[in-house]
Amino acid sequence: MSPAFLLVSRYEDADAWRQELLALVPGMDFRVWPDCADPGEVTMIAIDYDDISGELLASFPNLRCIVYLGHGAGDLLDHPAMPASVDVVRLKDPGLIGAMVEYVILHVLRDLRMEPLYRAQQETRVWRQHLPRLAREVHVGIMGLGSTGSAIARALVRLRFRVSGWARGTHGLEGVTCLGGRDTLATFLGDLDYCVSTLPLTRETRDIVDATTIAAMKEGAHFINIGRGATVVEEDLLDALENGHLSGATLDVFRTEPLPRDHPFWSHPKVTVTPHESAGSLDGSLPAIAENWQRLCQGRPLINLADPKKGY
Amino acid sequence: MSPAFLLVSRYEDADAWRQELLALVPGMDFRVWPDCADPGEVTMIAIDYDDISGELLASFPNLRCIVYLGHGAGDLLDHPAMPASVDVVRLKDPGLIGAMVEYVILHVLRDLRMEPLYRAQQETRVWRQHLPRLAREVHVGIMGLGSTGSAIARALVRLRFRVSGWARGTHGLEGVTCLGGRDTLATFLGDLDYCVSTLPLTRETRDIVDATTIAAMKEGAHFINIGRGATVVEEDLLDALENGHLSGATLDVFRTEPLPRDHPFWSHPKVTVTPHESAGSLDGSLPAIAENWQRLCQGRPLINLADPKKGY
Repeated sequence: MSPAFLLVSRYEDADAWRQELLALVPGMDFRVWPDCADPGEVTMIAIDYDDISGELLASFPNLRCIVYLGHGAGDLLDHPAMPASVDVVRLKDPGLIGAMVEYVILHVLRDLRMEPLYRAQQETRVWRQHLPRLAREVHVGIMGLGSTGSAIARALVRLRFRVSGWARGTHGLEGVTCLGGRDTLATFLGDLDYCVSTLPLTRETRDIVDATTIAAMKEGAHFINIGRGATVVEEDLLDALENGHLSGATLDVFRTEPLPRDHPFWSHPKVTVTPHESAGSLDGSLPAIAENWQRLCQGRPLINLADPKKGY
Repeated sequence: MSPAFLLVSRYEDADAWRQELLALVPGMDFRVWPDCADPGEVTMIAIDYDDISGELLASFPNLRCIVYLGHGAGDLLDHPAMPASVDVVRLKDPGLIGAMVEYVILHVLRDLRMEPLYRAQQETRVWRQHLPRLAREVHVGIMGLGSTGSAIARALVRLRFRVSGWARGTHGLEGVTCLGGRDTLATFLGDLDYCVSTLPLTRETRDIVDATTIAAMKEGAHFINIGRGATVVEEDLLDALENGHLSGATLDVFRTEPLPRDHPFWSHPKVTVTPHESAGSLDGSLPAIAENWQRLCQGRPLINLADPKKGY
């Protein structure tokens, strides 16, 4: 049997992966789902949460290792379809997190400093100042306090924002008011000027941002989503933008990607659409993936293994 | 004689000043240049650097105090028109500096993350990712290391940017490569991806960003000006944008303000124009100004005095 590596992702650029991985490991058998030829040859797959299903995973009888393309690995370890005998490898690319931190800072400041208004003024050659609120006068909340959410919270604290965080469990972050558990969500949301979701897609987070959750947000708040599209009920978000309860939304992820050309988000005056680009690229992680592929083929211990006991 | 306070500024909103100062000091004789009635009654003026002239200052025989509306006070203390017997009061509003820090971070990230391109893509419903450079891969230089320039440099370091600074004299800032003096300017400029000027207008800085200075910048650099318009030779900047030596410019200050409607900056595809708004408002400083006005009227010692011996 010739071992094969399979990329399963609706987000990644498979050609770029092929080019870089083959440069690192000449002759590597790199395949892209759904064209995986003989599934019995697949020993390692790289996969994003949205693509995981029991049916898919059960179709690779010789699978030895899963590279999880999300942040951390807790969501995969908890996944009902996760086979017990397979190793899980995490990504550890600080670039990925750095890119998301920079995205959030850009888009919070862009709204805070009325950048769309100033662009419209430049179009029409209008010279008019608008008094900005300062970071220290603004309350930003982060939903999801994994490595990405925590890094965003810390960066916002350093910029003098007032920062709160919310997650499934309890977290402690210096300078950040942290709440945990579903029954604290409304309290968390009620005072935020910006609500930034970094939530992964799990059974618990699917559709979590619905009409009830949005109604708990402060009047005039701005919602930013860099987590997963299916955590948001898009019709409910549109309703809240239409009726003025929310002042705006900056969305990098959507229930269907690419965002369909006839989707109302594209032309909505209160919505900023970006094409799932907040995390930049996984390029920085490919050398570690290539290293693990070689280790797996040679029967050596893997690096960056997730620990099921710790849950991440 | 009834003592009067005079605001001399082409930038400030005189009506807003009047409203807030009169609320703080009912009955205060607040005047706005050039309508200063009897100049012999003016004992305190608030003035920006661009408005200072020997002729103007000599016209107030009973002037006792100048509130300098720029950052620090070194430029005013050095000014040839500065009367020796008049006290100089500095602003100490951290909001002013915070607003400029936030402006620079917004506009560096906006260019770095190709935000104008993503806005154009949303207009035409195009879903296409572009690989961003991360902060840690980008070199930002700050011209001018007064309180504003230093605060910007420190904030950029915390965001992982590579940061250099340049000023007239020598400075030490943790994590920042600092150069001092005119003969180091070309070295400073040669490796920057973003060059941010916070320079005040002085004899030494007028026209400092000319064809020679711009030629010393790295090919493809982006120039940001939040200092003073007259430090830049605007024709030379336009030439460098036209011939592709610079990739873009973000300008908050101009030689003539408001920027004339027929100025080529307004419609230049590589230029972002903002209407002298980076510093936000001086509102936070008005209580201290009102306090000093009352102290002056009552013959008590002033607060926030500049020290001519220290030069700031």
